[in-house]
Amino acid sequence: MIRFNSDYSEGAHPKILERLAETNFEQTPGYGEDVYCMQAAQLIREKCQAPEADVHFLVGGTQTNTTVIASALRPYQGVITAASGHINVHETGAIEATGHKVIALPQEAGKLTAAQIAEYIDWQATDESMEHIVQPGMVYISNPTELGTLYSKAELTEISQVCRQRNVWLFVDGARLGYGLASRENDLDLPTLAKLCDVFYIGGTKVGALFGEAVVILREGLKKDFRYNIKQRGGMLAKGRLLGLQFLTLFEEDLYFEISAHAIALAEQLRDAFRKLGLTFFIDSPTNQQFVVLPDTICDKLRENFEFEYQQRVDETHSAIRFCTSWATKEEEIRALIQALSDLCQKP
Amino acid sequence: MIRFNSDYSEGAHPKILERLAETNFEQTPGYGEDVYCMQAAQLIREKCQAPEADVHFLVGGTQTNTTVIASALRPYQGVITAASGHINVHETGAIEATGHKVIALPQEAGKLTAAQIAEYIDWQATDESMEHIVQPGMVYISNPTELGTLYSKAELTEISQVCRQRNVWLFVDGARLGYGLASRENDLDLPTLAKLCDVFYIGGTKVGALFGEAVVILREGLKKDFRYNIKQRGGMLAKGRLLGLQFLTLFEEDLYFEISAHAIALAEQLRDAFRKLGLTFFIDSPTNQQFVVLPDTICDKLRENFEFEYQQRVDETHSAIRFCTSWATKEEEIRALIQALSDLCQKP
Amino acid sequence: MIRFNSDYSEGAHPKILERLAETNFEQTPGYGEDVYCMQAAQLIREKCQAPEADVHFLVGGTQTNTTVIASALRPYQGVITAASGHINVHETGAIEATGHKVIALPQEAGKLTAAQIAEYIDWQATDESMEHIVQPGMVYISNPTELGTLYSKAELTEISQVCRQRNVWLFVDGARLGYGLASRENDLDLPTLAKLCDVFYIGGTKVGALFGEAVVILREGLKKDFRYNIKQRGGMLAKGRLLGLQFLTLFEEDLYFEISAHAIALAEQLRDAFRKLGLTFFIDSPTNQQFVVLPDTICDKLRENFEFEYQQRVDETHSAIRFCTSWATKEEEIRALIQALSDLCQKP
Amino acid sequence: MIRFNSDYSEGAHPKILERLAETNFEQTPGYGEDVYCMQAAQLIREKCQAPEADVHFLVGGTQTNTTVIASALRPYQGVITAASGHINVHETGAIEATGHKVIALPQEAGKLTAAQIAEYIDWQATDESMEHIVQPGMVYISNPTELGTLYSKAELTEISQVCRQRNVWLFVDGARLGYGLASRENDLDLPTLAKLCDVFYIGGTKVGALFGEAVVILREGLKKDFRYNIKQRGGMLAKGRLLGLQFLTLFEEDLYFEISAHAIALAEQLRDAFRKLGLTFFIDSPTNQQFVVLPDTICDKLRENFEFEYQQRVDETHSAIRFCTSWATKEEEIRALIQALSDLCQKP
Repeated sequence: MIRFNSDYSEGAHPKILERLAETNFEQTPGYGEDVYCMQAAQLIREKCQAPEADVHFLVGGTQTNTTVIASALRPYQGVITAASGHINVHETGAIEATGHKVIALPQEAGKLTAAQIAEYIDWQATDESMEHIVQPGMVYISNPTELGTLYSKAELTEISQVCRQRNVWLFVDGARLGYGLASRENDLDLPTLAKLCDVFYIGGTKVGALFGEAVVILREGLKKDFRYNIKQRGGMLAKGRLLGLQFLTLFEEDLYFEISAHAIALAEQLRDAFRKLGLTFFIDSPTNQQFVVLPDTICDKLRENFEFEYQQRVDETHSAIRFCTSWATKEEEIRALIQALSDLCQKP
Repeated sequence: MIRFNSDYSEGAHPKILERLAETNFEQTPGYGEDVYCMQAAQLIREKCQAPEADVHFLVGGTQTNTTVIASALRPYQGVITAASGHINVHETGAIEATGHKVIALPQEAGKLTAAQIAEYIDWQATDESMEHIVQPGMVYISNPTELGTLYSKAELTEISQVCRQRNVWLFVDGARLGYGLASRENDLDLPTLAKLCDVFYIGGTKVGALFGEAVVILREGLKKDFRYNIKQRGGMLAKGRLLGLQFLTLFEEDLYFEISAHAIALAEQLRDAFRKLGLTFFIDSPTNQQFVVLPDTICDKLRENFEFEYQQRVDETHSAIRFCTSWATKEEEIRALIQALSDLCQKP
Repeated sequence: MIRFNSDYSEGAHPKILERLAETNFEQTPGYGEDVYCMQAAQLIREKCQAPEADVHFLVGGTQTNTTVIASALRPYQGVITAASGHINVHETGAIEATGHKVIALPQEAGKLTAAQIAEYIDWQATDESMEHIVQPGMVYISNPTELGTLYSKAELTEISQVCRQRNVWLFVDGARLGYGLASRENDLDLPTLAKLCDVFYIGGTKVGALFGEAVVILREGLKKDFRYNIKQRGGMLAKGRLLGLQFLTLFEEDLYFEISAHAIALAEQLRDAFRKLGLTFFIDSPTNQQFVVLPDTICDKLRENFEFEYQQRVDETHSAIRFCTSWATKEEEIRALIQALSDLCQKP
Repeated sequence: MIRFNSDYSEGAHPKILERLAETNFEQTPGYGEDVYCMQAAQLIREKCQAPEADVHFLVGGTQTNTTVIASALRPYQGVITAASGHINVHETGAIEATGHKVIALPQEAGKLTAAQIAEYIDWQATDESMEHIVQPGMVYISNPTELGTLYSKAELTEISQVCRQRNVWLFVDGARLGYGLASRENDLDLPTLAKLCDVFYIGGTKVGALFGEAVVILREGLKKDFRYNIKQRGGMLAKGRLLGLQFLTLFEEDLYFEISAHAIALAEQLRDAFRKLGLTFFIDSPTNQQFVVLPDTICDKLRENFEFEYQQRVDETHSAIRFCTSWATKEEEIRALIQALSDLCQKP
């Protein structure tokens, strides 16, 4: 059985395990106040060309989204997201559990537009009953999105302007950021993200780490007492150095970018193969998540040897499914999948 | 200036004020444990033919929705509502502030269908990632809806069945219940509501009381310690008798039904007049809220002498607006409005 | 049966009922945006000599405490209170339900001292593990306290200084403020309160109104979007004018002070009688709540004709009990109580 | 610099790192549904002689406390704890952030008594104003406590009975459970814990794991949908197998008990040395946390080469401090500490 259903099926890049083993008996202070966290934070600030940024390390994505959003909003404020956004769909109401409405706007290819965001904020702010309506206090976007698509620099710039003009925070969920930055279609980089967002995070869990997300806070108003929020939301790892060590390893020699590029190269092989087989794409994704439409009969056969994620029903006999590559995917696994699909598609 | 913008522009039915004055210097226990609350609760149980029901009195609608919903759900559960539902739109995120997601489904004429509810609940319960998705624990519907429409007995029966088969509570917001029950198109009554819902409330604020909503709890599982919830959510009125006295007055001689019928009669006069003037209805409402589409120029003129609610833009030169009648509306006010509209519509 | 167990056993001062009846059929905007609320707010600003203050009207005390505190604190902050504070003891965890810790410090006679507050804030702010400890963001005191005692001007001034130096809000719960201001031992007034606190409220429910508390916000940082908070916490009364009208009536001709003085005069008669009977005071209260220690046998007898509140067991045969006077207490009721107690105390 | 300030200064037992490395490229399902989690859960059920127990793995202690407590309580319920309990003191209000009051009772040596718990629950349940008081729904105790002390089997049995008679859950925080079970004074074991509690957890973070706590749920009423709660509170690790693998390693050959015994043996060496030096114990602890009173001058000197935790001021010239041993402490470190202290104590 080969798993393509997620980008967190394996452990971590071997260099990370080595580093953990090497430092295992060192004694460090807890809760992220060790030297490795400090070095990793400094390195990330440099990569972002954001010397004033605050960098914090948290264990996982839901925790990070919850901590960032709850710390940024006033009680009567909500967070705007695409309806397909992770916080709206797959976090068991974690944001609402902190008291805030997730304001889901219609998405196209997993994305929001600046115009759409502006229209919503302006509507609320001028409605006769505005005090009866949740006030949007933050915009949350994922890049890459949950559908594998990317925001261009132009799009993100426009969204950033809309937010700043209206005094609304902009937060970018980068759980799969590496795979976005490594995409052929991408024109963003870390310094640009740091310039355009108020806060974003660099995902480790899905990009080579055992676990971990590095939150980069750019705006002053979000920095104060953030560690209190981390602790309260259960995200302050006692042995915080485990996070620092992992991000240090990922960024010291640009390992993060290298292993992301590997995943993208394999995803492109997959995409090319799908094209050659004449399959319909459910969505056109330039990143490590590939979505195609398959006959249910082929899905069933394929499932005997491969794991992949069921996305949604397309019609009575077809479904959209998702294949993920990752830093850990092997070329032979891709070849095996392509071969199997070719065989199945060519059978009568 | 005559106000048609809401059904809470005036005070209370004069009999209520009389009753308050008569009993003003009586001494009673606080917090709803007085004899008037007990009598009113008993009377409501009788009207509902629900001798086992628990009846509680709260001050207002948002408070009531919050208290009922938060007391019914487990932390990871949410409440299904039509996207137009009051809890989704006009309560400043009060439900989310208690930690629960409002699961907004598309509405038609302000209503949900049983099929739609069943489909959503069944989808969540069978999804591979179900533990990552908020579990629907309650269905919230308003009757009349926020758009003035009504659920038929058949529709409500079907929704009730869908909910019971799936162990999901059914909650009916009856902020304007009187106006629904008095409608010519209605085929529901209190005993039927009590049979089909798990909990509902009878609105007083919009139907003759100074304020107050009577919550009727039918299912055992929702009864336990409900008063703790009321107190915690800030809804336990110190002089609780004010609520008991008002509902006693409203239900003792069926005043509630009588004054609701008055509002409906006037709403029908309005509806007939709109028809005669050839106006387009924004929605076809058989209750006290009437929605029509008017040219903006007429809206502006009309606003010189009348208050009404802006609903939404229809096209570049037309808007949908809402007129409410209530227990307090005078026939002469209706005549004045019809006259004004006729004049405006007939001008070149 | 005569009730001394609370100060909310009766309805409202008759002038309030008259005013409600007179204005009953006037049409006003809802949600506190009517002319009566505006006039009442202006009047209160004048009485407080605080022309820049924001004044809001809410229905009850728990709701007010919850709304003020939750709107003032960051998620990781808590509110300091005396252990006997209403928010710590008698609000069913309403503050915690908004996500905030109630930090209960030991009280003496229901009061906190400036030194005690300073010590706690400074300890948290300098502790090695400070990020693991809830940060005090507000100090809540009641005046009069839950034990009937008063803060002097000197004490409040000192507390205010401690709070301002440390950037912690000061909130005074004035549910019984009238009875405090009318006390012979009081040296505070509304303008002084407005100078020393960041926010406080003037209680109506216990001082002549049917219900209602007037929140006075002095500091800029607490004013923004406060109405969103009121709505979200369920405290925005649809017919908000009911609140405005009541406070207008109470403050237009200083009725509030007059009826408070009445309650205090009767409380003093009671206190004098207790002294003459040689009873032990549980606490020395200069306001409308009087606490004495009685043998349980006398309590039982007394309970046949009077209601009073059980405070706590003192020893195996004695209990502390509380008698409240109010704006509505009649002199003959006081005489009856004194007579009954005298009879019981002199029996063998 | 040698660190005795906590039991989480190092990484993990080397066998755990080996195991992680060995399995690193295996592909498993995420979110704790892998074979290692299943095996570890089964092993723990066996060790607890609780074949019906549900076992879940979470990342850290605050997260675990929050998830367990919030999933067990109704909104108006709170959790009883000793005032010194971790949830009351050192979790930045994480419990309150889920909406629940932490009901702190006075502790003696970090412990609660059955009598004290019974008295509180019974008081609340019979108070006239019970609906205005948070209802205790759970009792939280730590074993070992935050002060290193232990509950005896007799004490825990009595507490368990008090809770069951009153329908209140009993939850034991076992963040340092290994060190408790390994103590010479302990008479509890896992099967007894499983019999007496409704839910408890076995701490990994402080006992040899990189991170991780194993929650054991014994009572049916707490099992339902627990994974939804884990996800919502941010505790569902994507690569859940990391948790399963660690607990499997710790329990397969009783490594957990072996390394705990090591820490206790070293703590006893320390305790003996303190006795010989004639130092005053701040508390008499039979586990891995040792608390002594030292002159501030000695503290300052000691701090040049050792890290330890400041507990509290004892008098003007003395402080209580804490030394922790752990699975990772080396005998030579203990010897160095004893030598340094001896030197300092014998200097003039």
